[in-house]
Amino acid sequence: MFDYIGSFEHAISALKREQRYRVFVDLERKAGQFPHAVWNGPDGMRDVVVWCSNDYLGMGQHPKVIEAMCTTARSMGAGAGGTRNISGTNRPVVELEAEIADLHGKQAALVFTSGHVSNQTGIATIAKLLPDCLILSDALNHNSMIEGVRSAGCAKQIWRHNDLDHLEQLLSGAAANRPKLIVFESVYSMDGDVAPIKEICDLADRYGALTYLDEVHAVGMYGPRGAGIAERDGVMDRVDIIEGTLAKAFGTLGGYIAGRCAVVDAVRSHAPGFIFTTALPPAIAAAAKASIAHLKASHCERARQRLSVAATKSALRKAGLPVMPTETHIVPVMVGDPVLCRWASDLLLHRRGIYIQPINYPTVPRGTERLRITPTPAHDGRLVEQLADAMVWVWQELGLPIARRSRRLGSPSLAVATG
Amino acid sequence: MFDYIGSFEHAISALKREQRYRVFVDLERKAGQFPHAVWNGPDGMRDVVVWCSNDYLGMGQHPKVIEAMCTTARSMGAGAGGTRNISGTNRPVVELEAEIADLHGKQAALVFTSGHVSNQTGIATIAKLLPDCLILSDALNHNSMIEGVRSAGCAKQIWRHNDLDHLEQLLSGAAANRPKLIVFESVYSMDGDVAPIKEICDLADRYGALTYLDEVHAVGMYGPRGAGIAERDGVMDRVDIIEGTLAKAFGTLGGYIAGRCAVVDAVRSHAPGFIFTTALPPAIAAAAKASIAHLKASHCERARQRLSVAATKSALRKAGLPVMPTETHIVPVMVGDPVLCRWASDLLLHRRGIYIQPINYPTVPRGTERLRITPTPAHDGRLVEQLADAMVWVWQELGLPIARRSRRLGSPSLAVATG
Ligand SMILES: Cc1ncc(COP(=O)(O)O)c(C=O)c1O
Ligand SMILES: Cc1ncc(COP(=O)(O)O)c(C=O)c1O
Repeated sequence: MFDYIGSFEHAISALKREQRYRVFVDLERKAGQFPHAVWNGPDGMRDVVVWCSNDYLGMGQHPKVIEAMCTTARSMGAGAGGTRNISGTNRPVVELEAEIADLHGKQAALVFTSGHVSNQTGIATIAKLLPDCLILSDALNHNSMIEGVRSAGCAKQIWRHNDLDHLEQLLSGAAANRPKLIVFESVYSMDGDVAPIKEICDLADRYGALTYLDEVHAVGMYGPRGAGIAERDGVMDRVDIIEGTLAKAFGTLGGYIAGRCAVVDAVRSHAPGFIFTTALPPAIAAAAKASIAHLKASHCERARQRLSVAATKSALRKAGLPVMPTETHIVPVMVGDPVLCRWASDLLLHRRGIYIQPINYPTVPRGTERLRITPTPAHDGRLVEQLADAMVWVWQELGLPIARRSRRLGSPSLAVATG
Repeated sequence: MFDYIGSFEHAISALKREQRYRVFVDLERKAGQFPHAVWNGPDGMRDVVVWCSNDYLGMGQHPKVIEAMCTTARSMGAGAGGTRNISGTNRPVVELEAEIADLHGKQAALVFTSGHVSNQTGIATIAKLLPDCLILSDALNHNSMIEGVRSAGCAKQIWRHNDLDHLEQLLSGAAANRPKLIVFESVYSMDGDVAPIKEICDLADRYGALTYLDEVHAVGMYGPRGAGIAERDGVMDRVDIIEGTLAKAFGTLGGYIAGRCAVVDAVRSHAPGFIFTTALPPAIAAAAKASIAHLKASHCERARQRLSVAATKSALRKAGLPVMPTETHIVPVMVGDPVLCRWASDLLLHRRGIYIQPINYPTVPRGTERLRITPTPAHDGRLVEQLADAMVWVWQELGLPIARRSRRLGSPSLAVATG
């Protein structure tokens, strides 16, 4: 008989050998005290400052959002009680879809249990409905989009990350009237760089392609109403399908697509990941709607986030740390080694009460391991200073390169190369 | 240029032509008043009785569950703020996993955003970790399991639904030491029939296969602590991996697998649908844990559900309606035609304020279209009587066969054949 347990144990040992085994940091967030949280570590409970949350604007603790969740749970119960088709379509989910369609200026929107599911089943379904579709996928697309492309089962070509010439080359190589689907992100979450959306739409027009844009790391944060980078750049109406999450800047749970009625209705009617699963609870839908509605009108969260991000980048750079250049709210600091990266994270957590998860392969390529910092409106100047001090201390402890101020055997040239 | 919108519109027209286009019934549930709800229909808001909810025990409105949700949202916020690995592992999710492991008497458990995702990414990951794995899948398995089998990308064989001889034939045809994964459900949700779990485990032992059991439509409802059919049958320890949902009898949202540490840890470390998505909100996890804990100790919900199911089956049978024989809480009434099935559902909803979603192809095979009724502890004798009366009236209106009491051109023989 086959040794099943041996096989699973073997897979885990391999990860441990490669230093890729993950131990989750068990946190207790405190509404109203974010970014402070309680870490349940090996030595018991301990106060920490979270510097790597994707609750980018702290909306998960906004009183309006929590209130919407509780009021709706009290009046409508804890769950939806069914799939969308079989008794699970609830008023708040319908209203949320209208709110999302309005946010993106689209005819319709469809809500899924997560952003991952919306990409996985959304991309697959759209591509399958187009005869002999060719998918053109950015090389750095998120796993959920890759899963969607794979599930589509049709032809695909990968264009070099944000490389318009390469995209054009691939587009021009396909028959003019063949359906083509360009799938890409606006903000790439591990590098914090931004796609040239307008230019991609120009190419889509020229070669008759459909555009599918993941704005997961941009919604709530960019554009006058927080609809994302496409809104900021004034090209939202040129993107065919916009996908987003309710679980990052909007602070709740769920994902969605928005687009023309025909596309949204076709996905609604065919996507297995939408059809064969329980609908989002009314309380979650109401909370997400409250968050979107608030961020459509309120600018102070976005303004304060920008200040906090600028202060963080500036403090870390001044301290000589290898901050990767980004124009967004994502602040990656390069380490370039998986063991040192984990070590840096451990030292910060255990010795300084600062939680920044190490980002290792396969989330980023080997040799580009990093700490990924996400300053929010709640990270004030004092916390930024503490962070810079602690990171300099860790860099020195580990003999990592620090520009100029380097006290140990740091290599400033490396800091320049990666920074 | 390709006509994209035309393509999507074409797909929708095809569904409409086949009478398979779905219009969702927009409901406002009222906590404390279930199964009564408000239907937002074409003529405005209207009170209806829901007879097709998968909130099988009404736990979605249980005060303990709602309280856990609200208290946790107030203290920890509305969302998790990150993936499990990057700041999203929250105390309530960790506690929920311990509660689930205990429920099923397993070493460990892992929570996903839905039951659909747990099957899709769980089955695929388990199979991929086993070299040259052969998946043996029951012919009536749910879409989420089929998606998991497909994503696994390995060899698969379909055994005829609940047919032990066929399963044995396939098992014996594979090399003795080849890894084999048997995937099946306990309660099949559209027919309400039950798998011979013990006998399947016997075969798995004999032929050295791993067993993966979906208890989505059984957890909370069967067994002394509500762990499902495997618990009821005393064979829970013999099943390797048990999968369940938090969104049906437990009344909230999410899915899970439970099994030995090595299996669960391997899935935790490799499953893309688990890794690359935001964790369940603490408030949802706390609500789900409260629901499981309550149903472990409390028997009255299960007892009252059984009474309600028995009363419903008996009332419909006495009225001569073609109730399909089932030993479970699922009460399918055969119509056998997609148009009449939708019509029956429409008449019940519009004329009698009774909501039972028609179940048509592809959820069930063509020619077996049905109304699927799920009596809960909240459906009392008066509601059961109303239901039987309304259904008899609809059957008469549509000229559908009624046994004995048939007043129109019904065919009693058909009623017998399908009932
Ligand atoms: C680019 C991108 N798309 C989609 C997702 C999935 O969103 P969700 O967390 O809502 O599943 C993520 C991260 O989780 C992401 O980084
Ligand atoms: C057998 C079975 N497994 C899994 C699921 C998915 O569970 P969830 O609704 O939690 O996604 C369903 C129904 O939705 C189901 O019927």
